[in-house]
Amino acid sequence: MDKDRLKDLLQLVASGKLSVEDASHTLSHLSFEDIQYAHVDHHRSLRKGFPEVIYGQGKTAEQIIGIMETMAPHEDIIMVTRIDEEKSNHVISRFPNAVFHPAAKMIILTNKPLQKQGKGKILVLSAGTSDIPVAQEALLTADAMGNEVESVFDVGVAGIHRLFNHKELIDQASVLIVVAGMEGALPSVVAGMVSRPVIAVPTSIGYGVSLGGLTALFAMLNSCSSNIAVVNIDNGFGAGYIAAMINRL
Amino acid sequence: MDKDRLKDLLQLVASGKLSVEDASHTLSHLSFEDIQYAHVDHHRSLRKGFPEVIYGQGKTAEQIIGIMETMAPHEDIIMVTRIDEEKSNHVISRFPNAVFHPAAKMIILTNKPLQKQGKGKILVLSAGTSDIPVAQEALLTADAMGNEVESVFDVGVAGIHRLFNHKELIDQASVLIVVAGMEGALPSVVAGMVSRPVIAVPTSIGYGVSLGGLTALFAMLNSCSSNIAVVNIDNGFGAGYIAAMINRL
Amino acid sequence: MDKDRLKDLLQLVASGKLSVEDASHTLSHLSFEDIQYAHVDHHRSLRKGFPEVIYGQGKTAEQIIGIMETMAPHEDIIMVTRIDEEKSNHVISRFPNAVFHPAAKMIILTNKPLQKQGKGKILVLSAGTSDIPVAQEALLTADAMGNEVESVFDVGVAGIHRLFNHKELIDQASVLIVVAGMEGALPSVVAGMVSRPVIAVPTSIGYGVSLGGLTALFAMLNSCSSNIAVVNIDNGFGAGYIAAMINRL
Amino acid sequence: MDKDRLKDLLQLVASGKLSVEDASHTLSHLSFEDIQYAHVDHHRSLRKGFPEVIYGQGKTAEQIIGIMETMAPHEDIIMVTRIDEEKSNHVISRFPNAVFHPAAKMIILTNKPLQKQGKGKILVLSAGTSDIPVAQEALLTADAMGNEVESVFDVGVAGIHRLFNHKELIDQASVLIVVAGMEGALPSVVAGMVSRPVIAVPTSIGYGVSLGGLTALFAMLNSCSSNIAVVNIDNGFGAGYIAAMINRL
Amino acid sequence: MDKDRLKDLLQLVASGKLSVEDASHTLSHLSFEDIQYAHVDHHRSLRKGFPEVIYGQGKTAEQIIGIMETMAPHEDIIMVTRIDEEKSNHVISRFPNAVFHPAAKMIILTNKPLQKQGKGKILVLSAGTSDIPVAQEALLTADAMGNEVESVFDVGVAGIHRLFNHKELIDQASVLIVVAGMEGALPSVVAGMVSRPVIAVPTSIGYGVSLGGLTALFAMLNSCSSNIAVVNIDNGFGAGYIAAMINRL
Amino acid sequence: MDKDRLKDLLQLVASGKLSVEDASHTLSHLSFEDIQYAHVDHHRSLRKGFPEVIYGQGKTAEQIIGIMETMAPHEDIIMVTRIDEEKSNHVISRFPNAVFHPAAKMIILTNKPLQKQGKGKILVLSAGTSDIPVAQEALLTADAMGNEVESVFDVGVAGIHRLFNHKELIDQASVLIVVAGMEGALPSVVAGMVSRPVIAVPTSIGYGVSLGGLTALFAMLNSCSSNIAVVNIDNGFGAGYIAAMINRL
Amino acid sequence: MDKDRLKDLLQLVASGKLSVEDASHTLSHLSFEDIQYAHVDHHRSLRKGFPEVIYGQGKTAEQIIGIMETMAPHEDIIMVTRIDEEKSNHVISRFPNAVFHPAAKMIILTNKPLQKQGKGKILVLSAGTSDIPVAQEALLTADAMGNEVESVFDVGVAGIHRLFNHKELIDQASVLIVVAGMEGALPSVVAGMVSRPVIAVPTSIGYGVSLGGLTALFAMLNSCSSNIAVVNIDNGFGAGYIAAMINRL
Amino acid sequence: MDKDRLKDLLQLVASGKLSVEDASHTLSHLSFEDIQYAHVDHHRSLRKGFPEVIYGQGKTAEQIIGIMETMAPHEDIIMVTRIDEEKSNHVISRFPNAVFHPAAKMIILTNKPLQKQGKGKILVLSAGTSDIPVAQEALLTADAMGNEVESVFDVGVAGIHRLFNHKELIDQASVLIVVAGMEGALPSVVAGMVSRPVIAVPTSIGYGVSLGGLTALFAMLNSCSSNIAVVNIDNGFGAGYIAAMINRL
Repeated sequence: MDKDRLKDLLQLVASGKLSVEDASHTLSHLSFEDIQYAHVDHHRSLRKGFPEVIYGQGKTAEQIIGIMETMAPHEDIIMVTRIDEEKSNHVISRFPNAVFHPAAKMIILTNKPLQKQGKGKILVLSAGTSDIPVAQEALLTADAMGNEVESVFDVGVAGIHRLFNHKELIDQASVLIVVAGMEGALPSVVAGMVSRPVIAVPTSIGYGVSLGGLTALFAMLNSCSSNIAVVNIDNGFGAGYIAAMINRL
Repeated sequence: MDKDRLKDLLQLVASGKLSVEDASHTLSHLSFEDIQYAHVDHHRSLRKGFPEVIYGQGKTAEQIIGIMETMAPHEDIIMVTRIDEEKSNHVISRFPNAVFHPAAKMIILTNKPLQKQGKGKILVLSAGTSDIPVAQEALLTADAMGNEVESVFDVGVAGIHRLFNHKELIDQASVLIVVAGMEGALPSVVAGMVSRPVIAVPTSIGYGVSLGGLTALFAMLNSCSSNIAVVNIDNGFGAGYIAAMINRL
Repeated sequence: MDKDRLKDLLQLVASGKLSVEDASHTLSHLSFEDIQYAHVDHHRSLRKGFPEVIYGQGKTAEQIIGIMETMAPHEDIIMVTRIDEEKSNHVISRFPNAVFHPAAKMIILTNKPLQKQGKGKILVLSAGTSDIPVAQEALLTADAMGNEVESVFDVGVAGIHRLFNHKELIDQASVLIVVAGMEGALPSVVAGMVSRPVIAVPTSIGYGVSLGGLTALFAMLNSCSSNIAVVNIDNGFGAGYIAAMINRL
Repeated sequence: MDKDRLKDLLQLVASGKLSVEDASHTLSHLSFEDIQYAHVDHHRSLRKGFPEVIYGQGKTAEQIIGIMETMAPHEDIIMVTRIDEEKSNHVISRFPNAVFHPAAKMIILTNKPLQKQGKGKILVLSAGTSDIPVAQEALLTADAMGNEVESVFDVGVAGIHRLFNHKELIDQASVLIVVAGMEGALPSVVAGMVSRPVIAVPTSIGYGVSLGGLTALFAMLNSCSSNIAVVNIDNGFGAGYIAAMINRL
Repeated sequence: MDKDRLKDLLQLVASGKLSVEDASHTLSHLSFEDIQYAHVDHHRSLRKGFPEVIYGQGKTAEQIIGIMETMAPHEDIIMVTRIDEEKSNHVISRFPNAVFHPAAKMIILTNKPLQKQGKGKILVLSAGTSDIPVAQEALLTADAMGNEVESVFDVGVAGIHRLFNHKELIDQASVLIVVAGMEGALPSVVAGMVSRPVIAVPTSIGYGVSLGGLTALFAMLNSCSSNIAVVNIDNGFGAGYIAAMINRL
Repeated sequence: MDKDRLKDLLQLVASGKLSVEDASHTLSHLSFEDIQYAHVDHHRSLRKGFPEVIYGQGKTAEQIIGIMETMAPHEDIIMVTRIDEEKSNHVISRFPNAVFHPAAKMIILTNKPLQKQGKGKILVLSAGTSDIPVAQEALLTADAMGNEVESVFDVGVAGIHRLFNHKELIDQASVLIVVAGMEGALPSVVAGMVSRPVIAVPTSIGYGVSLGGLTALFAMLNSCSSNIAVVNIDNGFGAGYIAAMINRL
Repeated sequence: MDKDRLKDLLQLVASGKLSVEDASHTLSHLSFEDIQYAHVDHHRSLRKGFPEVIYGQGKTAEQIIGIMETMAPHEDIIMVTRIDEEKSNHVISRFPNAVFHPAAKMIILTNKPLQKQGKGKILVLSAGTSDIPVAQEALLTADAMGNEVESVFDVGVAGIHRLFNHKELIDQASVLIVVAGMEGALPSVVAGMVSRPVIAVPTSIGYGVSLGGLTALFAMLNSCSSNIAVVNIDNGFGAGYIAAMINRL
Repeated sequence: MDKDRLKDLLQLVASGKLSVEDASHTLSHLSFEDIQYAHVDHHRSLRKGFPEVIYGQGKTAEQIIGIMETMAPHEDIIMVTRIDEEKSNHVISRFPNAVFHPAAKMIILTNKPLQKQGKGKILVLSAGTSDIPVAQEALLTADAMGNEVESVFDVGVAGIHRLFNHKELIDQASVLIVVAGMEGALPSVVAGMVSRPVIAVPTSIGYGVSLGGLTALFAMLNSCSSNIAVVNIDNGFGAGYIAAMINRL
């Protein structure tokens, strides 16, 4: 429940269109709702400007549907991350308007058209083709949170002229999300070119001492460029989320 | 064989209802029984107040059944942990009274109604919905060992008001088991609220640098709250066990 | 400020011996006091039954003294952990009644004779002579928190008859703290002998793949005995603290 | 050389007060200057809105002074990070206007009064007293880069009411920097309270499995709150820098 | 080709029963034979008293059969380790006399009855039932290399009286192989009881911070008993092999 | 597009056989081509003497085919690494001239007979039979890049006479690629025998503390021989590539 | 107290030269003696054929002297390991017959001339000059335990002909101790040459990814030669000890 | 002893100027010389084209001097690496012609003017000023081995135009050595620009998750550029050595 919904509800009470009792009941569910296996945090939209996002991994399809049913009456948008195709099919059969994004492994269910909230443009860059699924998770998240987004894929440092060719786009972005696996060098180079915050996302792409993305993560944390902050390995969602928070300022 | 059974047996001898020979044979099996692939520790009930618990992982269904058959004549309760559904089916077909708990991956076979042994209440908290299977392993163990138990799930620190809402329950508990994956922060916050021992259980829930639960484990061991002790990753059983030991004092 | 002090203060108000204004001023400091570099948590004695303990590492002597000065009017006992001899000398020159324990690297300042709070006896065992400093930190902490304590040192598993010789002491203890470095095997053996909670403390004693105590820590977390919970490497203080919490039940 | 300086210079040429030759010479040094052991990046102020910052570790005092001498004619502010007291004394004797901040181990040399560039307020929180040096590095950096800053120290999760007492300050901040060692739980809790970007800084405070700050780092990267991005262990400077970048948007 | 075969061949030459040419051809293959994907080391029996053992992992069934065919004319015994059931079936269909041991995942093909070579008895102990497959790999190896072997399984330290019950067997052994997973404590306890060499074998049994056997390995390397040397995780074969080498002295 | 192709094209323009417009269009694609999910780097052949190599892992068959279609008109040879049989079948059905090498998991598509570019001979040695797939990836790469190559497999240090038997071959090589898993000792021994550069390739062959090849990698980096440089675990391709670069000098 | 001393004492009783009372007092101390900070294990000579060895690290000079005073009346030889020069001086001033070996950091105090107990010869090989201190710890230990010992230093695999030059010595040894840092390859090569047990000792010599000896350790555990068992990093003492145990068989 | 010296000696014999006896004595020392603590490998110059290099770490000054004395009569150049100033002073006082390079911590003693052996130019690049000592170790080694060398320092990726400014130098080099700490990204970018072999040297410069250089090392091994091979952390010597080997081809 975001601030608009809250005001609407209070307006209804003021105008006598909603009984105090009913309003009270609705608001008493505002803080959170305990459905045994989850405490759904209805207050989050008010507090953080975006509803709780459902982390799909380790939850059964039934649990995910249950949480969504609890949220649906209160929220304009519901997102599920890290959900595989099989669970997704169950969810879609219950919420036919929900859309499954197979590369990004996300479900997005929108009840009301999105309002632009971000001020500038968020640009998502990926070092390789294999990093695209993570980049898309970031892109979809930032988009769902009401931002103008753009993307350039496969511009890793082994052929650095490919990156420089997009210099204009890079210079125009308010916030940059840079996604890279292997040696994770791209964020350092990009951050050295701009005076904007760069959110670096390491991916688990690679083998041997890529160590499931640890090498890219550590490289990004050790960047000799200073306008970089980092999120967890393969955490495109988190990158999109904080980029959206930054872009709202 | 617990102390009551032992006394009963000696009473039978004293009253002439059991021959010395038969009693002797029974007691000679008391220490342990060697069934080739296992030394079943019959003495454990006497020594530790609870019979040996069968660790299912790495054992065949046949081995598990064999050990249970050796224990069954002597024990009131038999527990098997970390057993999957397939092995479980074999075991149940042999011991139809045994109950399989699929989330917790445990089998519990009770021959006699449980006696309450714990004094206070043991409260199990979980940070997320995905941590519930581990939380339930703890819950079932503490319950099987004769304790009053209660649980609250999905009260992680990202929406900390959900936790504070249960303050009364938290204050009433004698021992608290706090189960969390990801950054493992919940035990620190809970322990800061109470003057009771907190058993922290890290779970392997998460991805990237959750490192299969190592991050949650290390965070819990580094807690700035001091009334915390920690068990192995996903070791709900161990948490329930030591909580029961503490609650008996 | 513990519960007794609080009641006393309220009694004074009730009897007119303390003005409401003065009482109010005192109580307004009850929650915590902000002295720039620290938020001293005066409320902790009430909430947790023992005042905040000052973690000496990374604090200057001046900061430690400042925090102690803020606490002194309210608390019966003040403890500082992980403080070296040099800083300790500064502290003692300001608080001459404070006692520095060089092996355990603790300062204890007692304003009022201790009251026994624990019910049973806490036994501290160490595997080797080199583990004694950590064992003593545990011992001093449990003692300071009002418990009967006893200790047996250097009874590691390489000569296991030394341990068995103390079986009676072991059987009598309510809570056992077992301190070991190197392979960290002692807690498993001890826990296998008793039906009491065992708090295991790994130490950084060893070399090569002792890995600064990680090996002992991991061994203890993997114990095949179930009545074990573990604290951080060399965290004698934490072990003593939670043992005291358990012993109060 | 920032944009103002550049325009001034061009104005001088336009007005005939500076010969084309001299201007050309000045501008030819604009890109960078090679002084054997360093390529001083004069272009950085233009490109990134802040001059190159000198990383003191591993450089001799002579090298640091040499780089500062190359920068001084072109820049309004020069910062040196990770410089110890001894090297600092050499630097100060050459640049008497430079100020050494011993806790943060930084030198700041300001040639011109700072202009506010940030829009909102940057709030720096620390979990413990021992984390203050890192927090101050962040504070000084954000301040030097032209931001309104504020700080609250020692509000860790073991006594969480201390944190909640500062809720108003927390709600007002545009960007939050949260500094914590040990289990690194504070950023998760803070981020759960606000809809602003949180920059989390792990510190190396702790012992045993704090692993020199790795545990706090990993915990922060695994936060169950999504509006968090993380910088390297003890990297207060980087946190202040990116917070300033965000606050300029 | 062992020393006996070599002498026999030379005898044949001496007695004129084998032409010099034929003997020369045979001996020219003695050093090794290059079959493209392998250099079969025929000299090993002479040099080390036991033929090359085929490491099955990462080899195709065809490659294994090829190597066996190259060895068969020269060796009395051929062993294949780490071979799964499927590959094993291929091998057995080609060498019907070969025997597959499913728990130990070994194939043993014996062309001639074994001669006892070891002097004393080799005793294999396992801490748990789940460690038996590794223990059996050790047992089968030592047996195949001509030693008297005996075994006791499931005598871990959580019920240490089970171990002490076998004291006589333990005291009689010349070499002891002690197999344990989890915290790996059994070798320390056993080694403390005897004046014989103990070969410790860590297993990957366990979960969480058992780290795939690293914890047991490190614990064994850090044993406070000194008559212990260690082999790789799950390397029952290596333990049996070096025990056999020791027992021949 | 390599230098020969470029010259041919310019020649066509010079001779009027190609319109300036068409040539311009062709050359404008020279730098790279953006096909949404990839920036194909056509400039690489010119810059590095060999076209971009397609890293198959994490790409769909469709993406691989798409990139190959973009490259095919410009390049004489196209290589795909780390591609499994299933994806390979899709690729081959589209490019019937492409050859799949199942052990090395590579596809090589040659449009024009190879020209020898390397000067000396590149020798590939493997320590074991199980290391052959990685060795073959190196061999095929070096061969495809125009070098004379030779190989000797299964000459590990446990029977070092097998290695010495190939001393002549070893002495004649210009560059040596040494592939080894487990303890990774072979490169040290080989490098000690020659005055040529040795490229060491660790493989993930082994178990327990082979740690997926980390042990072999670290051993090679710590070699007491100095004429060794190392590539990533299982990176036969990279070894072949840099060996080819060296052999061209 | 070894078996000879025990028999002598009983003989004295039998012959009436020692009163039963005095003998009883002596024997009652046989098991162990509790001197507060240590449980000295007098029974060890009887049980293990060699008295307890004092691990110097983490003990004060006073504690070491105290333990030695408790042992001196009962033992023919006392060894202290890992003792630095400063502590050593204190010990020598109390026990002037004790000898300090500075490279090996050992003290050996012999009360009675040594008797040869080992049957064959123990050979200690070191890969480099820097590994000699660890090699000497092994040598001195094996020597002190009554074995014929010999050594060859600096025969690492970078110049493998140096090793082969000592082939005769190598062939004659009963047990081989091979000490190596860096890549730890020497034990594999040596073990491939002999049919004797090889005890491998990794050292912490090296830098970078030698990881304080972990790389050498892991390499040795992964040896492709099978007659190898390994002790802890820098544990020359343990290697000498188990080699002596083996050589007694 | 290199090939020229050997031929000279044989010439002397041929011409009767050197007796067969004396020549024989000289040559018998050719293989190696055993001076107790070292087997000096005189054969190495012949075998590898450069004499043994003395690794200073872990050797006493006396041992280093002793080895140098054994080498001096046979070699034209003697190098000592990783030697600190104090040991260096001892060495210089014995060999006054030896030169100590304090940044690189090397001693070089040249008896005869160097002959150019390398064909092209070796270029050493460093990412930062703090990486210079390692870069200089590489430079001095390559120079001492008879190569034309050049260097560019402080051209890290945070200001990548500094690197591109040296494009001509980069294009002209035969072999490139790229030295970088922190995120270790420079080698990838450089290797993407050239068709020459790049030897990457990670340094231990950095803090936090630079992990003593492991992050830079892993990043380099995971480079998305393929013409890279890597040496150990801070191993400037090894990089210079293999670059010289490559440059001789």
